Amino acid sequence: MSVYDYVLTEQEFVNKNELKYPFEERGLQFGDGIYEVIRVYDGEYYLIDEHVERLYRSAEAVKLQIPLEKQEMYQRLSDLLTKNKVETNAKVYMQITRGSAPREHAFPIDTTANLYAYVQDLPRKTKLMKEGISAISYPDVRWEWCYIKSLNLLPNVIAKQEAEEKGSFEAILHKDGEVTECSSSNIYLVREGKVYTHPAKKNILHGCVRSRVHKFCEDEEIPFIEEAFRLEDLQYAEELFLTSSTAEVMPVTKVDDLVIGEGKPGPLTRNLQRTYEKDAGLAGSRSIFKETTA
Amino acid sequence: MSVYDYVLTEQEFVNKNELKYPFEERGLQFGDGIYEVIRVYDGEYYLIDEHVERLYRSAEAVKLQIPLEKQEMYQRLSDLLTKNKVETNAKVYMQITRGSAPREHAFPIDTTANLYAYVQDLPRKTKLMKEGISAISYPDVRWEWCYIKSLNLLPNVIAKQEAEEKGSFEAILHKDGEVTECSSSNIYLVREGKVYTHPAKKNILHGCVRSRVHKFCEDEEIPFIEEAFRLEDLQYAEELFLTSSTAEVMPVTKVDDLVIGEGKPGPLTRNLQRTYEKDAGLAGSRSIFKETTA
Repeated sequence: MSVYDYVLTEQEFVNKNELKYPFEERGLQFGDGIYEVIRVYDGEYYLIDEHVERLYRSAEAVKLQIPLEKQEMYQRLSDLLTKNKVETNAKVYMQITRGSAPREHAFPIDTTANLYAYVQDLPRKTKLMKEGISAISYPDVRWEWCYIKSLNLLPNVIAKQEAEEKGSFEAILHKDGEVTECSSSNIYLVREGKVYTHPAKKNILHGCVRSRVHKFCEDEEIPFIEEAFRLEDLQYAEELFLTSSTAEVMPVTKVDDLVIGEGKPGPLTRNLQRTYEKDAGLAGSRSIFKETTA
Repeated sequence: MSVYDYVLTEQEFVNKNELKYPFEERGLQFGDGIYEVIRVYDGEYYLIDEHVERLYRSAEAVKLQIPLEKQEMYQRLSDLLTKNKVETNAKVYMQITRGSAPREHAFPIDTTANLYAYVQDLPRKTKLMKEGISAISYPDVRWEWCYIKSLNLLPNVIAKQEAEEKGSFEAILHKDGEVTECSSSNIYLVREGKVYTHPAKKNILHGCVRSRVHKFCEDEEIPFIEEAFRLEDLQYAEELFLTSSTAEVMPVTKVDDLVIGEGKPGPLTRNLQRTYEKDAGLAGSRSIFKETTA
């Protein structure tokens, strides 16, 4: 899963081995920057508009000047795939920091942002999407502005590590029992044919796949209810699933010691997985359902 | 205020221009690390035990393995000043991240921490300490574990920038009106001869100068009351001051449009400034009081 050779920067493409940063870099010393992870299927971006729009929204929220105009950004992101001859399932990671400057909390003057974006192969998590995953619950101790996709990810790192140590795929974050989202995904509870998820307030990331799933539900007349649910509600959940750009629509069949519903991916989740595949051009021979009749 | 030539790393001393990090560094991508800023007066550390102890406490809290034993750490920090022939007032900045590794939230395996520490001249803020500074109030949107001195500093950066844009020195952070601390300092309200400050819970940094000021108060029988005060209480404040390793004991004479007390540094603050100077070996000819009779 190595990184493709050419990395995009704010100026030009550089070889990945040549891209290094000084120790006085604001990403490195303050996490003073933003990022995006964009999904690529067979060498083509999925939901690129949503990601680029959110990137510029994040930048505005932290008063960071992105060194490329939006149209130029699209062109360079396209060039990144072309130049690397990407034809696989992959992801593009892009981050933009407030630049390299002597360490002072306040913004540096006459410093331009550092930008880089690279491509990495990323097969679909087919087996997990078929079988479902287990998760742990974990306190949400993050800052109040998680709608900004910032580089301040230490609480997410700690939560994910805790999940991994317990053999789980994700950590479901909660504030005093109220579920917000996961360490790197949004989460949804299904009950009586309705989908419940935390409203897109400032304290959760407004996921690109989340907004897509919202649309899928509207199109298919599945009630999509933006109301936070609680950990106690999990025992009444018929289904539970999470979404992210790398996990797609992922069934959750167990949380801590609690088996969700019948302990296997439910019909509504399956339905949304199918819709996702159609939307992303993954139906037919590339579908996770190709070997099963469901 | 440039950085001295020799920078300490986890392995050896390197020239500052040679110290560079790859783009896949966990400090840069997650803020997955911790730091300290240690004050140096005339080439000698002040409160080094407090800083080293806190560094190891922060590391433990985020399960980060510091690549040096504590005794070795003291030796290397001492060598850092010697090797650079530091004789001035300065600061040492040290940070430790979980290392360089392909980007995954969970901890990387077989990766060692990246450590660096450098020295930078830092004159005392004499004029400000004499005259006092103004501050703004700003919402505290940070994470819940601010007792960990982590690299996740974006909210602090934003608050400090807001202060700077309004011509102020600091931002006083509050949760729904309850004052926690400042963007990079602790804060104290004086009323009827008593000092009030937020208790050293998980949501504020346990400042090294804060603990020293606590001791000063005990020694001088000044009541030191660890109770949070509110923004509304500022109108009844007789004095207000903040502390940090770089600001020492700094009088605050104005918050937003509110003049504190008589609008000038008060007697209890002056007293603590004098005690600080004695404790740090700054009395006599180097005192901020040397030209004034107060």
